[in-house]
Amino acid sequence: RTPAERDQRELNEILQKCKHFMSDPVTDINKLLENKDDMRTKMELLVMDVQADVCKALAEVDGGQTFKVDRWHRKEGGGGISCVLQDGKVFEKAGVNVSVVFGNLSEEATKQMRSRGKSLKSKDGKLPFCAMGVSSVIHPKNPHIPTIHFNYRYFEIEEADGHKSWWFGGGTDLTPTYLNKDDAIHFHKTLKEACDKHDQSYYPTFKKWCDDYFTIKHRGERRGVGGIFFDDLDSPSAEGLFGFVQSCAKAVVPCYIPIVKKHLHDSYTPEEKAWQQLRRGRYVEFNLVYDRGTKFGLATPGSRIESILMSLPLTARWEYMHDPAKGTKEAEIIEVLKNPKDWVH
Amino acid sequence: RTPAERDQRELNEILQKCKHFMSDPVTDINKLLENKDDMRTKMELLVMDVQADVCKALAEVDGGQTFKVDRWHRKEGGGGISCVLQDGKVFEKAGVNVSVVFGNLSEEATKQMRSRGKSLKSKDGKLPFCAMGVSSVIHPKNPHIPTIHFNYRYFEIEEADGHKSWWFGGGTDLTPTYLNKDDAIHFHKTLKEACDKHDQSYYPTFKKWCDDYFTIKHRGERRGVGGIFFDDLDSPSAEGLFGFVQSCAKAVVPCYIPIVKKHLHDSYTPEEKAWQQLRRGRYVEFNLVYDRGTKFGLATPGSRIESILMSLPLTARWEYMHDPAKGTKEAEIIEVLKNPKDWVH
Repeated sequence: RTPAERDQRELNEILQKCKHFMSDPVTDINKLLENKDDMRTKMELLVMDVQADVCKALAEVDGGQTFKVDRWHRKEGGGGISCVLQDGKVFEKAGVNVSVVFGNLSEEATKQMRSRGKSLKSKDGKLPFCAMGVSSVIHPKNPHIPTIHFNYRYFEIEEADGHKSWWFGGGTDLTPTYLNKDDAIHFHKTLKEACDKHDQSYYPTFKKWCDDYFTIKHRGERRGVGGIFFDDLDSPSAEGLFGFVQSCAKAVVPCYIPIVKKHLHDSYTPEEKAWQQLRRGRYVEFNLVYDRGTKFGLATPGSRIESILMSLPLTARWEYMHDPAKGTKEAEIIEVLKNPKDWVH
Repeated sequence: RTPAERDQRELNEILQKCKHFMSDPVTDINKLLENKDDMRTKMELLVMDVQADVCKALAEVDGGQTFKVDRWHRKEGGGGISCVLQDGKVFEKAGVNVSVVFGNLSEEATKQMRSRGKSLKSKDGKLPFCAMGVSSVIHPKNPHIPTIHFNYRYFEIEEADGHKSWWFGGGTDLTPTYLNKDDAIHFHKTLKEACDKHDQSYYPTFKKWCDDYFTIKHRGERRGVGGIFFDDLDSPSAEGLFGFVQSCAKAVVPCYIPIVKKHLHDSYTPEEKAWQQLRRGRYVEFNLVYDRGTKFGLATPGSRIESILMSLPLTARWEYMHDPAKGTKEAEIIEVLKNPKDWVH
């Protein structure tokens, strides 16, 4: 084959992939082709692919609303594609967001990086960076269907001396209103399988990290029954980690959709719905007070607020001194949120 | 009169005051009597008095629910009295909280102090402190009755060299769902009168401070139509400032109750109620992301979470990309939130 033929074949491959996407990628197709071996390109195509997989699976289950697709542009560099399904048959609010942004990190954002243990040498207070990821929160209407969150991201930063730092982060976690052990086991086992293909130490390490990270400190509770969470991964190799991130991201649909389908027709009482609303309030507390992604986003100039805060539920509730009585289903889930369990052994 | 007779008379005076309170003061009556000339004592009696004034006025207007009174104890020192009326006829959630706490400031809390410009010399990382205040948020059901917040507080810190720092802080601000100019004018004028009795520069300075402080930065909006806000006040004199704080705190009822009564029977549509719920969502965003009192509370070990978060509304809502059309009443209030107005000239 001639180089021209090879180029054409590769362009066709990318164009073929794009057909599946919810929208064209953020980066121009020609630029993707030009840099086809760069991790940025691979990651952008992966997050677009995952966004499409998840949106299509959710829309099919919902059978009511479809996803509203917004392309947005970031003045400081890059942009994103937000897909939101609101007030559907099954889902109260489902958001799947892709962002591919670059520019200079703000001082505030850099501080957040630094507090995470990254020592970064900036030039005149500026750090050129690029970040891309897919991030999603799905809030169903039925209190017997849990909320899911996932986020997979890749970061590159150029330091003053020209040195490039890069790392991957991500995770998938489940927030049920009521405890269903089978669901928790299915969810964790699916994640463990995805992890085990790459490194036997990943699942136990990232399971614990997830329980630690998704803690509502002032309540002494986890947000949900956990899953996996990792950040700042930069070894052993970018290729190896990309494969791992790909496995995790591709596990979202098999983790979650079977649980949704199983409870699709579960009946529920107004009391169960009210308890869900209180748990939604806790979800808001975690996201606004502790979540690093949200805080990073709110502190980054030019970030798209509607995409960051699409993680918030459609509705939430706070009651003064609500305390479930012992022996109730409400007390059962609180117990697990206070003392995380091992779901796979 | 003999000293014994004078003591008895003073005890009777305090006991007389206590009859009006929602509960006994946090500090033992004998200790208050012993330290009757201390600012701590004066301030504790003031905040108890204001709590009672406001709760009684609100309960009378509500005519349905009464206030639930909880005394709580802080293991690390002090405690408080939380009064909450939930799901009343008029009020969705009304909380008026007194706290009188002391102990050592945590490192996290000290950092928050320091970022506010106070340079504090600690001994082994510990700073003995005492703080007392009354703090309240009232969320009515009817979208034509605004939400009010107020907080008046006094702080003492003992530095390593034995030097005592003290300061007052506080404010009252209004958050309407829809703009009613007459309400905003009445509210600001009443506050201005309270300020003007003490210093002509107070109202304009603290009005601007309020607009600056209650900013939801990521939205470029104020939380409401403002009021007054001040912090770190320690001159000209403790006595003078106490008088000022007293005037402001005593202005809460005349600021607010006439507005509540005026709109008590206003009818409203489901669309107006939905807009109120979206504004409640913004209230949650401000309180959890920016409010220093909330952040200080959540980071202080042993603080009473239910009392801190009673400021959150009973219900709130987040819709993706909700943007009121031009010329609507919803757009009218947004305009004022983006560009604060002068209400008294």
